[in-house]
This record gives sequence, structure tokens and C-alpha cells, in this order.
Amino acid sequence: MNLRIGIMGATGAVGKEIIEVLQDRSFPVERLRLYASARSAGKSMDTPFGNIIIEDAENADYSELDIAFFAISGSWSQANARKATNDGCFVIDNSSAFRYDDAVPLVIPEINSDAIGDSKLIANPNCTTAIAAIPLYEIHKAYGLKKVIISTYQATSGAGAAGMNELSEQTKNYLEGRQVINEAFAHPIPFNLIPHIDSFQDNEYTREEMKVVWETNKIFGEKDMPISCTCVRIPTMRVHAESIVVETEKPIDAVDVRKRFEVAKGIMVKDDIENDIYPMPITATKKYDVEVGRIRQNLVFGDHGLEFFVCGDQLLKGAALNAVQIAEVLKNKKL
Amino acid sequence: MNLRIGIMGATGAVGKEIIEVLQDRSFPVERLRLYASARSAGKSMDTPFGNIIIEDAENADYSELDIAFFAISGSWSQANARKATNDGCFVIDNSSAFRYDDAVPLVIPEINSDAIGDSKLIANPNCTTAIAAIPLYEIHKAYGLKKVIISTYQATSGAGAAGMNELSEQTKNYLEGRQVINEAFAHPIPFNLIPHIDSFQDNEYTREEMKVVWETNKIFGEKDMPISCTCVRIPTMRVHAESIVVETEKPIDAVDVRKRFEVAKGIMVKDDIENDIYPMPITATKKYDVEVGRIRQNLVFGDHGLEFFVCGDQLLKGAALNAVQIAEVLKNKKL
Repeated sequence: MNLRIGIMGATGAVGKEIIEVLQDRSFPVERLRLYASARSAGKSMDTPFGNIIIEDAENADYSELDIAFFAISGSWSQANARKATNDGCFVIDNSSAFRYDDAVPLVIPEINSDAIGDSKLIANPNCTTAIAAIPLYEIHKAYGLKKVIISTYQATSGAGAAGMNELSEQTKNYLEGRQVINEAFAHPIPFNLIPHIDSFQDNEYTREEMKVVWETNKIFGEKDMPISCTCVRIPTMRVHAESIVVETEKPIDAVDVRKRFEVAKGIMVKDDIENDIYPMPITATKKYDVEVGRIRQNLVFGDHGLEFFVCGDQLLKGAALNAVQIAEVLKNKKL
Repeated sequence: MNLRIGIMGATGAVGKEIIEVLQDRSFPVERLRLYASARSAGKSMDTPFGNIIIEDAENADYSELDIAFFAISGSWSQANARKATNDGCFVIDNSSAFRYDDAVPLVIPEINSDAIGDSKLIANPNCTTAIAAIPLYEIHKAYGLKKVIISTYQATSGAGAAGMNELSEQTKNYLEGRQVINEAFAHPIPFNLIPHIDSFQDNEYTREEMKVVWETNKIFGEKDMPISCTCVRIPTMRVHAESIVVETEKPIDAVDVRKRFEVAKGIMVKDDIENDIYPMPITATKKYDVEVGRIRQNLVFGDHGLEFFVCGDQLLKGAALNAVQIAEVLKNKKL
């Protein structure tokens, strides 16, 4: 059965990736419709599904769609998701609007596709969460996670196409001695880093940092698993990297973990240090699997500690791929 | 009393910074002599101390110097340091050759200048160690460090002038669609990161990572303080950043720590998140003080945990400044 698919926010970085991933994974599309702001409506986009006229998202008739991918903004999702599901359309929401709503499943298909249940609205996790959760869950299943400490190296794609453009344009300005400006980021990004993503919370963590704490617990079905995170923007294009340290309930062994990662879905082990092979943005770009390497016994938690390094494409496993994987589950289970 | 100063490796990135720092801090220089490889000998350098002819480091007569800064390489230091001290010259060695030698003090003047004792040879710590140690020692004094977990964001200056040149030249190549090559680094650095600095050890940590463990213990006068570190090269110019999580013996309070940092020598607190002020490479570049911010209660270690973010100029506190500070101690204490 082929499905009628809508992408709300089709002109954005994530929307465009969803179109590519649908094609690449041979998702059974009966008709693809693209929606964006009134400003873009009426323009057309060349896609692997043909040239498609963009429609105004405000005027979408959700009864004409089986699945809608929401990739505009949190407030837009908040205003429109229930309208869509009431019209019988499944909504896969890329924003954070519903992720912390107990009534809405937050899903990484490799981990908790069962959580979808009967819900017509499914939240797609934050990019940083999704990329870390894939290897963390393998460890959690086998050893039980007791403490998780994460420091991130996040790409400019997290701020969409505007973020990536600002990095390349302003880097040119920097190198040619022209003034460097910043609009997508709070500070200039060329040859710099910014330890601040999303807004600061009362506890002095950023919302981006707290998303990892809240979402990982929800996806793993835990309540108070201790996680702490520092999120940092660095001048890379579209791959988030994360340095992760864990303490586990049971003693943990790096060799055994490497074997588990090698057979786990969604992971590409890149851990051959003798040949200088480890996860990097340039190798993880445009890859579906999350690269995991530098797997080694941690020096602080003794035989209950492990550390490793992860690189995942922010626009794929961190957004579009995970969303399409949720659609694949819906298709197999529900439609 | 003015001193006769020699810089061995004067044409390198660290050597050049030492010249600037000596001038900037009004170090009492009677005569500055510059040494480098035979290839550079005979050329001249414009310095704040006048135009100076570079001499061949192999032919240095150390009896003509009071203090020599060694900034060539570990093997060169190994071969020449004792010759210099036997001739009555104090040696401040920027390499790792003697850092782990129990007979040689490893010194950060803000922390352990007393360790110099009667030694004529003093080791300058690794850049990553020096930058982290300044705030860590303030915490250690007040609360006792129990566990330290570090992830770094290290600049290309760690590979010297060649590293910084490779970043800017290859970034231009990348942006103009030309081939990107790598010589200073194991992989291309533009818009990438590399979780690998220095050689891999038997325990699968890099030597750069283990330097932080070994050196911090030695400088703090500890033996087995648990520290674990992941060192990552990122595309920045000359400031190392570090995301640091600590567990302490006594309960720790972020407000109290911030106050301690504010009066500590060598630290500039940058921790005003309401105004988007936190440590960054673009603000820490060419600054003597290490910037510390994002100071907050850690979410994993409860009231015994804290995390913070540090940025320090790799060529200054991470190398030249600390070396000149050691020379200042020698001048005040010994000469």
C-alpha cells in the first residue's frame, strides 16, 4: 500500500533531507506533497519524486494525507499537530513541542518502536539525544547505565541551512580579512566554538543539554537515570560528535562492548586506532549509521566505567532518517 | 639584576611567543639570544629586543646564558638539557622529555613554584594540563578532588605554526573546491575534528590524554587521583577549550566556586549566561588568564559534583607564558 505523504517545512534543511531519505529508502509514496510558509507557496522544487509545487502549510487539508512530517517550528507544531491527527493523519513531529508530553511517544525505532502504541502523533527526538542514545542503549541493555556524562561537538547544521551558510560565508570573510558577522549564532562561529545551544534554564544548563537528560530517560523508559551534558557548537557542517563517559551497574568490558556495537543496528564501529580509524565528521557525513570508536575502559570508574566517541549526521539520524524510520514503523504496524 | 636569556627553537610558534611575553612582562633581559636549527642559523629576526641574528642551537655555549628556554623537541631536550645545566644554565623545558622524571620539577607557578627547590632543570607542563590545572587546583584546595573527567577542544596551534597554517590554507582550498590535503594532522582538519592527538598508548588512550592524568597528579602532589580525558583536535587557531566534570570529597557549591575563581590568580571568570558571556576561543586568544565559565552543579554527582568550561591560549598559559612565569620565579628565588 502506497501512502500519501506531506512534508511541512519542505524548504528547510531537515525537510529537504526527508525527501532524499524517503527516496533512498524506497518508501512507498503514493503522492508526495510539500508545504512551507506562504512566502514559498507557489514556487516549485525538483525532487526525486518529480517537480512539486510548494503549498501553503497554513491551508493544508490533513484528510488528504496519511503521514505528515512536521519540520517547521515548535510553535507551529503546537498549533497544528492535533488538527492533523483529528483529520486522521499521522504526524511525525521533528520539533520539541510534544517530546515531554507523557501522552506522546518519543521514538527511536532501534530502541522503543513499541512505545508508538495507538498514538497518531509521534515525537522525533533531539539530534544530540538520538545520536548518543543508539550506543548508550546497547550498554544499558547489557550492563545497566548508572551515570552518563556527555560533552558534545555540534555542527552548524543544528541551526539549519542558515547555520551552515553562516559558517562557510563568514569563514570566507575571516580568511579574506573582511568583517565577520553573526546572525544564526550568538557569536561569530569561524575558528571559534560556542558553549551555548538553545536557551539557558534555571539550573544554568541550556535547554539543549536538558533535552538529552529528559529525552534519553523517556526513550529508555527510565525516570531518574543520572545524565549530565555540556553542549558546544563548533565550526563543522553537519555531524554532531559526542565524547561520552558511563558508569555501569555491572562490570563492563571494552572488548565485549565493541562486539555488541558491531552487531547493533544503526552503529558503524570505527575503532581501529593502529590505522588512525575513529569517528570523524568527514566520514560520518551523509551516513545513516552512527560512527562509534575510541571505545576504552574509563580511568575514573574502574571496571564499571567506559568511554567512547560518537559521530552522527545531525540531519539524518539526528532528524530526517529517524523520522522516516518512524514512518516505516507506522507503515508496517498501522496502515 | 638583568639576565642573559637564550631561546632554543626561537623560530617556532612557542619560541616566538616567549619573546613577546618576555617583553610584555618587562622581564629583566640583559641580552636575548635566539637559537634554532642550522638551517635558520645566520638569518635574523626582528624582536622587541632589536634585530637578532639566529645562532645554531647545536653550538650554544650555555655558560654564556643564565636561563635557556627549550622549545625544539623532546629528543633535542633529552640530548641537551644536562649539558646546559652542567654549564650553570637554568633550563625551562617546554617538551615532555623530563616531565615524568621524579628528579625534575614540573611547575605551574600559581600552584607549585616551591617544587623547583634546587633544580636547575624545570619542566613546563603540557598545554592541556596547564589550562585545566589552574581552576582544578582551586577546587582541589577547597573541596578535594575525587574524580575528574575532561573532554577537550584543542586548537591547531598545538601542532605549531604548521598546524595553524594548515588550517587556514586548507580551509581556503575547501571553500574554493580545491583538493584538501593534510600534513600536520592525521586527517584533513577543515570543518572536521580528529579525536586523536599524539600517539596511542597500550591502554588505548593517547599520550596527550595520559599527559593530563600524569602531569596533573604530579603538579598537585598526588599519586592516584582518578582523572580521565578525551583529547580532540578541532578547527580553531590557538585556544584550547575543555569541558570538565568533577566529583569532590566535600560537598561543593557553584556560587562559592565562582567566588574562589574570581580572586584566583590566572583565572578570568566569564560566566554571565544572561548576557551570553562564557569562555570562547575568540575572547581567550592572546590572553594570559584562563577563561572559566558555565560553572554549575553537575547532575550526576549530586551535591559533590560540579562542571565548568575553560578556554586558555595554548601558546600562552599552555606554553610561553607558563615558561616565562617559571623564569620569573627563578629570578626572584635563585638568581
